[in-house]
Amino acid sequence: MGSVENKDIKVKDISFINSIKSIAVIGASKKRDYFFLRNHQYMFKGSLYAVHPNAEEISNFPKENMYTSILDIPEAIDFAFIAVPAKKVLEVMDDCVEKGVKLVTIFTSEFSDAGTEKGAELEKELLRRAKNKVRILGPNGLGLFYPKIGVAWRPEFPTDLGNVGFIAQSGGICNIAIYSSLELGINFSKVFSFGNGADLDFVDLLSFLINDPETEIILCYLEGIKEGRIDTLKTILKGNTKPIIVLKGGQSEIGAIAAKTHTASIAGDNKIWKNFFRQFNLIEVDSLEELLHTARLIDCYGCFKLQNLAVVSISGGYGVVLADLIEKSGLHVPPFSPNIQHEISKRFFMAGTSSNNPLDFAAQFFAINIVKEVIDIILSDNNFDGLIIDLPGFYLKLSPRIESTEDFFKIMLEILNLGHKHNKPLILIMQHLTRPNTINEFLTKIKENKITIFGDPQEFLPLLPKITKYKMKSKL
Amino acid sequence: MGSVENKDIKVKDISFINSIKSIAVIGASKKRDYFFLRNHQYMFKGSLYAVHPNAEEISNFPKENMYTSILDIPEAIDFAFIAVPAKKVLEVMDDCVEKGVKLVTIFTSEFSDAGTEKGAELEKELLRRAKNKVRILGPNGLGLFYPKIGVAWRPEFPTDLGNVGFIAQSGGICNIAIYSSLELGINFSKVFSFGNGADLDFVDLLSFLINDPETEIILCYLEGIKEGRIDTLKTILKGNTKPIIVLKGGQSEIGAIAAKTHTASIAGDNKIWKNFFRQFNLIEVDSLEELLHTARLIDCYGCFKLQNLAVVSISGGYGVVLADLIEKSGLHVPPFSPNIQHEISKRFFMAGTSSNNPLDFAAQFFAINIVKEVIDIILSDNNFDGLIIDLPGFYLKLSPRIESTEDFFKIMLEILNLGHKHNKPLILIMQHLTRPNTINEFLTKIKENKITIFGDPQEFLPLLPKITKYKMKSKL
Repeated sequence: MGSVENKDIKVKDISFINSIKSIAVIGASKKRDYFFLRNHQYMFKGSLYAVHPNAEEISNFPKENMYTSILDIPEAIDFAFIAVPAKKVLEVMDDCVEKGVKLVTIFTSEFSDAGTEKGAELEKELLRRAKNKVRILGPNGLGLFYPKIGVAWRPEFPTDLGNVGFIAQSGGICNIAIYSSLELGINFSKVFSFGNGADLDFVDLLSFLINDPETEIILCYLEGIKEGRIDTLKTILKGNTKPIIVLKGGQSEIGAIAAKTHTASIAGDNKIWKNFFRQFNLIEVDSLEELLHTARLIDCYGCFKLQNLAVVSISGGYGVVLADLIEKSGLHVPPFSPNIQHEISKRFFMAGTSSNNPLDFAAQFFAINIVKEVIDIILSDNNFDGLIIDLPGFYLKLSPRIESTEDFFKIMLEILNLGHKHNKPLILIMQHLTRPNTINEFLTKIKENKITIFGDPQEFLPLLPKITKYKMKSKL
Repeated sequence: MGSVENKDIKVKDISFINSIKSIAVIGASKKRDYFFLRNHQYMFKGSLYAVHPNAEEISNFPKENMYTSILDIPEAIDFAFIAVPAKKVLEVMDDCVEKGVKLVTIFTSEFSDAGTEKGAELEKELLRRAKNKVRILGPNGLGLFYPKIGVAWRPEFPTDLGNVGFIAQSGGICNIAIYSSLELGINFSKVFSFGNGADLDFVDLLSFLINDPETEIILCYLEGIKEGRIDTLKTILKGNTKPIIVLKGGQSEIGAIAAKTHTASIAGDNKIWKNFFRQFNLIEVDSLEELLHTARLIDCYGCFKLQNLAVVSISGGYGVVLADLIEKSGLHVPPFSPNIQHEISKRFFMAGTSSNNPLDFAAQFFAINIVKEVIDIILSDNNFDGLIIDLPGFYLKLSPRIESTEDFFKIMLEILNLGHKHNKPLILIMQHLTRPNTINEFLTKIKENKITIFGDPQEFLPLLPKITKYKMKSKL
């Protein structure tokens, strides 16, 4: 326990998180059906205890796991989730220290977040009482989501183990990210909502994720960091080899003021942060959606270097617009080399198609085996780094064109997997607005096969040059 | 019939389209179960005839409406959909002239679109045979979608009458737009896919929509216009009072080449087009998605002037990011004036919230009646032109927080309708990725109440300044 110190680095060690075996939920409220207790009850794989000063019966919860004080629990407690009134927190912290709890989340707010002297003083006192023995997430935070062992603060959080770590002060933004991940197909290793960051702060948690063997991609929503921590942040970033994607809140004047209200963070100078991110090769994005989409792209295709793209569409007009958008984003849609073009052209037999890049299959798309051959040829061309295919969902409804639905979807999935075969990103566009319910099973398979799917080209086009820049600079 | 000419303007009159009463589908193929015949059969409200040289029995189609030649049909025919092989088209055109058909769609391709001299010659001959008596959409086009009377070229096209007109050469892009409109809540008055534009071209169709009493908003996907038509285009635009939103294909070099392959269009100089759009106050957008979203915004809230926005969120972090994005897009998220701020602040009672702009309701959001009061106060402030509210779908799942689901959703809908009450845009963000199926009914009501809903702030933020610029210049 305590701080790990060497001459360069000062971060708190929380590597014990990976072996949490017991949890106490302290102070769950009856009014909301013991909300936080229930959420942990559904998912946690170790021993779970409920602590309440006047512990009565809780339906569907074993009476032998209920205690009036954490000190009465016979087993050691690794982690406690604390949701008691602010005035009770100090007392509960004393108990946690005595019990030897390693980590607590303090959900309770009205500490430094209240913006009052009283609140700030209470937070300081809380730290003193923790005696550097109990590590704290919060106060005013939702703490830790760790699906592998089932630590979760809300119902219906995903249970799949993941490789994506996420750090944010804000619990709300974590919630949006976690529920979105279900649909998006990314899975989290750990998510931290550290609230006021009284003890564990952004730098500590980033250091943990950089060293965490279960985390491969790191996402951050950052409003600001505490004074005096920038040198430590630089030190841990120097040793980092994982892609870190960051969304900086408070870039505008009004956003900075809001960030201060929100988590008492000092947003800092926008230019200084931008330079910092560039210097340490962090991928900076502009919205939460971009943060998640970037993680999905990297999770599916690794960090890639993209310059030349092939475009495949069923509608010539949409292909033209896509080519325009790609060129505008700084990437290219070059012609195929003559031998490749020859191989492709001889496979086009219908009127109203175009075998040049951007390709327009039009109704020949339903000759699905030929589409597969063509895409395989394109991706085998060394001059091309990836492929974008537009597939409006309504074309995939059972129609007289498609003789065997089952075969059609099987081959379609093989086509979409050709990106993996050639180790190049294959990005599918299927407008959100045109996805019929009848293809839900197919959409699930796309997700499981680690194929990226977007609803709108502008969801991913700004991200491709960012990943490319990262890849080129990281020289991995 | 024929051309309407005055000293300034040279466009073909097709106002008769609004009173089409009879259709002949010429040459539907048995292989695809008479695809185009079936599509018109399901929807068309007038008399429908099938014409086939060796007309046999067609299941579920009245034998008395089948003819081997259009000339044999006893009734007058207003519109014919022609899908015969290229070599038969001239012959069919002769019949149409003799029969007095007013408008035909020629679906058949391999005319000027083939890029061959033979194709170009065939197209010229087709025009000669039409004798300026039969107006033509195509060849290589899907023609007319007119939901009011049920003219439709594909199955499951929407049947609701609309106020949005759309012109594109490409049929594929029309299909994506039409199927998307179902989900988006916009409805089309007419959609034209005019293919090669041998007869009716972009200028003719735009002139028609500008004068069409059923059309209020005009969308265009434009790859280029025919030589010698620019002056006429200028003339008709001078008299226009409807918002026209345009997506220009072929802005990049590769896109321009693809546009030429696609519809033999000359994309032209990008700068000249941009200046032209600016001069005539057309709203230019960058993608099909933006084209449709702009129509939806204008359909819901008219053409608005937006400068100062209020932001309402449940997650402080998301609100900070939204404020940053809005400021980046050139709009503002200013503080409330003191008296308004006072009225708002006294309605906030929970910790972890913020009553400043951007507002963070956090868990107080579930005190839904107060949320309604606050939003009503904000929108009554003359300093604010509109409001953006972020509402992650998972918060709307039945939870212990929500006592009466029915009441909750009823008030929620009243809140979203406050934009209409104050005649200011109220824009809802609900991430596509977090919309649970359980709220589908609510989502339908949102659509019906003409409230805009987006999945990602970047879907609409670039559009707001464009609509504002249009509104300021149009001085309406």
